[in-house]
Amino acid sequence: MNELAGSCEVDPTPSGAATGSRVLHFQPDFRWQDVPVTAYKQAAGHWSGVARTVLVGDAGEQTAFHVRYFEVAPGGCTSREEHAHEHAVVVLRGRGQVLLGAAVHDLAFGDTVYVAPHNVHQFRNPTAEPFGFLCIVDSRRDRPVPI
Amino acid sequence: MNELAGSCEVDPTPSGAATGSRVLHFQPDFRWQDVPVTAYKQAAGHWSGVARTVLVGDAGEQTAFHVRYFEVAPGGCTSREEHAHEHAVVVLRGRGQVLLGAAVHDLAFGDTVYVAPHNVHQFRNPTAEPFGFLCIVDSRRDRPVPI
Repeated sequence: MNELAGSCEVDPTPSGAATGSRVLHFQPDFRWQDVPVTAYKQAAGHWSGVARTVLVGDAGEQTAFHVRYFEVAPGGCTSREEHAHEHAVVVLRGRGQVLLGAAVHDLAFGDTVYVAPHNVHQFRNPTAEPFGFLCIVDSRRDRPVPI
Repeated sequence: MNELAGSCEVDPTPSGAATGSRVLHFQPDFRWQDVPVTAYKQAAGHWSGVARTVLVGDAGEQTAFHVRYFEVAPGGCTSREEHAHEHAVVVLRGRGQVLLGAAVHDLAFGDTVYVAPHNVHQFRNPTAEPFGFLCIVDSRRDRPVPI
């Protein structure tokens, strides 16, 4: 036993209620218990095969950011767009691609993408399996401009 | 072929440089190419077995948030602490636990934790394998208070 690990033992003293904190339990097929999945940009007028799940930011949190999970169906893609706000993307499921400016990068689990202000970008799924990723954005942000 | 998927085809027209954007390539053993891994709270004076990788926020980004990957070694834990800023945590590797107030919750891949302001919390790894998670925080935030 590592004697230095003593600080990691469970302290039996209750430390009070955790008001407002919560655990969102992951479920098969990349769903989270009690968290709704919605279509992405339903008003866009064309099929894109993208579903959105808001994990943090839509339930009264005060965070300066929102954490969303996007899943792109086989053959689908997100809007090709640009905007002032930045994206941080971490791939969780399957394989896909990101267009950054004129370059296309292949992506798989764990690959992380930072999209800088006003860089044109699009996420695509050319595979036969779902392509899913976290996308973190500022909670206060400008509207995307389609390209 | 899905005729509606036409909007997802690659447009051969270059759309300019993507200045500042980048892809951080995931590598075996949960490392990211060219991203340093640092010890967590080296000044704490006790072993905790936690390593930190800053994926977004340390390289000139203007995001209102930072995305970090923390990995807790077998037997390790993060500080038991509270603070005004909130945490958004998404488990990527292994299994572990979170203490939220007086409750302990088991965590595995995909499980997502929101830690509300001033809720006492600690992440622990009682298993024999590494326990890793993304932790997203506001870029402007208060200092944690150990409990």
